[in-house]
Amino acid sequence: MRKILIFGGGGMVGQKLAQSLADNPLAAGDRVTLCDLHFPENGAPVAEQITGTVTNPAVLKRLAETRPDIVYYLAAIVSGEAERDFDLGWQVNMAAFQSFVDAFRAEVLASGGDYKPKVIFTSSIAVFGAPFPEKIDDTFFHAPQTSYGAQKAMSELLLTDHIRKGFFDGLSIRLPTICVRPGKPNKAASSFFSGIIREPLNGVDAILPVDPTTRHWHASPRSAAGFLRHAATLDQAVYENRPALNMPGVSCTVGEQIEALWDLCGADVASRIHHEPDPEIEAIVKNWPRDFAPERAIRLGFTAEKDFTEIIQVYLDDDFAG
Amino acid sequence: MRKILIFGGGGMVGQKLAQSLADNPLAAGDRVTLCDLHFPENGAPVAEQITGTVTNPAVLKRLAETRPDIVYYLAAIVSGEAERDFDLGWQVNMAAFQSFVDAFRAEVLASGGDYKPKVIFTSSIAVFGAPFPEKIDDTFFHAPQTSYGAQKAMSELLLTDHIRKGFFDGLSIRLPTICVRPGKPNKAASSFFSGIIREPLNGVDAILPVDPTTRHWHASPRSAAGFLRHAATLDQAVYENRPALNMPGVSCTVGEQIEALWDLCGADVASRIHHEPDPEIEAIVKNWPRDFAPERAIRLGFTAEKDFTEIIQVYLDDDFAG
Repeated sequence: MRKILIFGGGGMVGQKLAQSLADNPLAAGDRVTLCDLHFPENGAPVAEQITGTVTNPAVLKRLAETRPDIVYYLAAIVSGEAERDFDLGWQVNMAAFQSFVDAFRAEVLASGGDYKPKVIFTSSIAVFGAPFPEKIDDTFFHAPQTSYGAQKAMSELLLTDHIRKGFFDGLSIRLPTICVRPGKPNKAASSFFSGIIREPLNGVDAILPVDPTTRHWHASPRSAAGFLRHAATLDQAVYENRPALNMPGVSCTVGEQIEALWDLCGADVASRIHHEPDPEIEAIVKNWPRDFAPERAIRLGFTAEKDFTEIIQVYLDDDFAG
Repeated sequence: MRKILIFGGGGMVGQKLAQSLADNPLAAGDRVTLCDLHFPENGAPVAEQITGTVTNPAVLKRLAETRPDIVYYLAAIVSGEAERDFDLGWQVNMAAFQSFVDAFRAEVLASGGDYKPKVIFTSSIAVFGAPFPEKIDDTFFHAPQTSYGAQKAMSELLLTDHIRKGFFDGLSIRLPTICVRPGKPNKAASSFFSGIIREPLNGVDAILPVDPTTRHWHASPRSAAGFLRHAATLDQAVYENRPALNMPGVSCTVGEQIEALWDLCGADVASRIHHEPDPEIEAIVKNWPRDFAPERAIRLGFTAEKDFTEIIQVYLDDDFAG
């Protein structure tokens, strides 16, 4: 029996992953535990739930002592919030990740060689900053233009050094912007990418805060859960000492997103999107990547959608209740 | 009158910089203070000396309260030592740098807009890890293969985000391997690059722990001090939101280093080098960069030597007492 622990298990991606592991376990007997500050109130829990915060070292120590075989680390303050509250962002996205790594390394050292977890960390394409090449390749440098991106880039480096030294197995996964997110808008600067699809489908008006020519890099929640599942199945050697990967995704403009919505769901739905430029959001998003050539991840078998129509279809299949 | 503070001011590069600032101040009236655990015992101090460690937050707070205009941060555990003592490396090279940034940001916030230091941080080409392109360009990614490299890369990201947010001005400078270092061998894995020149010149046998075909990237101590001086004179805008730069240097093999020594100082001197492979050193050095195309730094006016003969000549002029 393997133990799987998901920090940030109450969040959207954490819940998608937990549901996926419940529906279709990676291996027979896998037992999944979620840790988060909050969990969804609707529906039955998809796995064991522990209420706690990664900013509390005692929580980290207690969970490290359970010696989970696979640890997903998804806990984070989102980009917009980390940009507005500098101290909170650094505390949650960096200091807590350092405490997490310290707590699990302490358990590894205490085990005398018996315990070596596989740590899968969700990083972000926000580690990259403009100006960019047409497509970002697998050796383009980290030049984040947000605190969130800096925190993710630093966490990757910290995890990679612990993997290199043999304390953990694992990988950092740079998620595309996850779209279409179900539920309500959140404080991420990227929230509108989902909002302009989700709200109109639910009969609600949506605000587009950036220019329709804005190009960005997307994958569905189903793909995000798929990336995280697939990462748990790969042997450490495949990463060739570079365990941080750009994930596959779909590059398209906001205009193309709206066009796909129009084609799939009609003009009435698409007409509920209203363009109201927001300089704060525009300033953040213009420094975000637009397209990738994620050759290593594709070679290792990570897969995402082929186009934005498919991304909308995944939302309609998995999350749309209308 | 400007105040200039140098953390790690007792080290070799710190002393070269302090001597250079004493001989030839950046501006009339500049006052230089050095902070370090130890200072050289020979000769008169080149500037005011404060004995203290960057791992003590009280020291950082006290020095931040003096509101230095320019802060050079050179304090570090060297690469070989950080690789052998994992905890010490992370404590000194990362946790202390975080404390430094926190202490100076606190002073900036307390000043209500009166105080904004220029922070110049010495990073390293160890932020890059093999495999490399033939020449590393200005957008090649950080993939360190040592803890030292990871700590330097993370510190750069931390400083850059504080600069982006307007708390500091400043820059991270990725120094080439500094060669020829005067004095005694140190615990850096790169120590032999200097040892094979310095020891034979002083009539002492030297051990070459790597293959003579090993190619690496060098600049003299005089150039290092020059980089740090030049960084203090540039306007923040020139960095275009990417204040971390590969410095210029000389790319050559160890064989070419020895050939330059032979040509300049004769066969007797060069024959004092003995090849004794050291697997630990070889494992570290094979993952280090070999050549760069540091176009941004060159465009901004940073300069180094043209070839290794010139690097030896700088040692003979500045440091050789024989």
